[in-house]
Amino acid sequence: MVRPDWIAVDWGTSRLRAWAMAGGQVLEARASDKGMGALTPDGFEPALLELAGDWLGRATPVIACGMVGARTGWAEAEYRAVPCTPLDPLRATRPPVRDARLDVHILPGLMQSDPPDVMRGEETQIAGFLAETPDFAGTLCLPGTHCKWVRVEGGRVTAFRTFMTGELYALLSRQSVLRLTIGEAAPDAAAFHRTLAEVTADPGLAQAGLFPLRAAALLDGLSPEAAAGRLSALLIGAEIAAARPLWQGTRVAVIGAEGLAGLYAGALTQRGADAYQKDGSALVLTGLTTAAAALLRTE
Amino acid sequence: MVRPDWIAVDWGTSRLRAWAMAGGQVLEARASDKGMGALTPDGFEPALLELAGDWLGRATPVIACGMVGARTGWAEAEYRAVPCTPLDPLRATRPPVRDARLDVHILPGLMQSDPPDVMRGEETQIAGFLAETPDFAGTLCLPGTHCKWVRVEGGRVTAFRTFMTGELYALLSRQSVLRLTIGEAAPDAAAFHRTLAEVTADPGLAQAGLFPLRAAALLDGLSPEAAAGRLSALLIGAEIAAARPLWQGTRVAVIGAEGLAGLYAGALTQRGADAYQKDGSALVLTGLTTAAAALLRTE
Repeated sequence: MVRPDWIAVDWGTSRLRAWAMAGGQVLEARASDKGMGALTPDGFEPALLELAGDWLGRATPVIACGMVGARTGWAEAEYRAVPCTPLDPLRATRPPVRDARLDVHILPGLMQSDPPDVMRGEETQIAGFLAETPDFAGTLCLPGTHCKWVRVEGGRVTAFRTFMTGELYALLSRQSVLRLTIGEAAPDAAAFHRTLAEVTADPGLAQAGLFPLRAAALLDGLSPEAAAGRLSALLIGAEIAAARPLWQGTRVAVIGAEGLAGLYAGALTQRGADAYQKDGSALVLTGLTTAAAALLRTE
Repeated sequence: MVRPDWIAVDWGTSRLRAWAMAGGQVLEARASDKGMGALTPDGFEPALLELAGDWLGRATPVIACGMVGARTGWAEAEYRAVPCTPLDPLRATRPPVRDARLDVHILPGLMQSDPPDVMRGEETQIAGFLAETPDFAGTLCLPGTHCKWVRVEGGRVTAFRTFMTGELYALLSRQSVLRLTIGEAAPDAAAFHRTLAEVTADPGLAQAGLFPLRAAALLDGLSPEAAAGRLSALLIGAEIAAARPLWQGTRVAVIGAEGLAGLYAGALTQRGADAYQKDGSALVLTGLTTAAAALLRTE
């Protein structure tokens, strides 16, 4: 029988992941598809109990991050304004619960006034990164549905920007007229790199280059994989051009799953950035562990 | 009882429109929602008979343009390569029919090799425009789901480009995370013009400015209408910047429904283009009439 000291929870829009923890050690890991997007506010406690209820013997701290703290989540957690440290677990939101064995802390997100921006979840990955690399000064790039570019200095987040590149790719490849050409095809690497050079020379291709993917399929038999590679390069290339103020002249750590983070790191290097790739799979748990240590020390 | 000499048909992805014609005169106009997108190849003849069957006494020429001629339409019509005149009705495709009273001609579309591009339907509007203004030399801009920029000279189309701006707006406002902020809200004009000036100064905002619309709604209570105006300006502004080679130094006629065409014409004028607005509602019928005159003269 697993009896954790505390439970780590990464609760995003589409996934719920939980770890039974003894200090910094993982006793067991589980996941479900009951993400925030699939739940109404009264559905969070049952979803958590369903996944992790058998871990609970006595009152157990649960440290959660991500969209669970959105306005449409379990309970709205605050946004802390940058510049600030990525985490302040003492400012977590504690939703009311029916099951007294749950002692839930939802970590705050981060906000920026100008330009307006918000994050929920990535701040915990950033805290994990800084726990491993406390002296890092530079930019973190976290690709995904919404890619975050985050300036970090002296252990604090000083500025950040969100780009909707992953969501744009999904909408264009699966729901626009380009679905007839791309669909679920995997991007071809050669097509990606060729088009990246083109969009670097002419960022307007991010607009002008979209429909030609469909036309090239009709006229020249462009393959779905080549079209996917080109679309990916158009969107990522334009993002990197627009994000230049955030990466130019600094080190850039690209954090994420190997394939996508590799495309970003390669594209940044090609633009002359000092970029390297960092596997991000463990960072959220490291960040949650940091938060737990701070919280449990004070309780 | 209406007995037309010929029937004009504008058959797009979402709509079917038909006119009973005596030469250049409209006897009756009808429309249905049986667009190409809703039909399989064997559904086109029944859809046309349902809408216009009672107009048929004897064998009647039907002159059709639009996506009805797509590969997934009734019968694939060819693409004619630019530079060329917008219409050559003698190269229409004639799908086999069961009802001998139908004598269907689907007009060819246009194609361009480099950059690859295609159109189906707009060539007939262009022919209508040139029937009214045969000496026009400059650029036609036809906003819509897929906006076409078309260079015209000496009665011929010399080059064109398609931008997916309308489709991008629909996907972002209704299906991305921005749906929570925008949805079906009508764009606010003041927000449109303010953001247009910003994106003209910094075209990278077409990428960087999207997520801030969501963040501004969360943090500052940005209204749906203001967010809609900003999104529209980000996309149209970036399109106009990318399309500059097609409009710079020429007259530009912006053809389309009042609201959207007005936004484009205003934005072009603000960029220093010699742009004016032209109501396009009658042009497709004028183009079809031109095609009918050429076809029926030869039969």
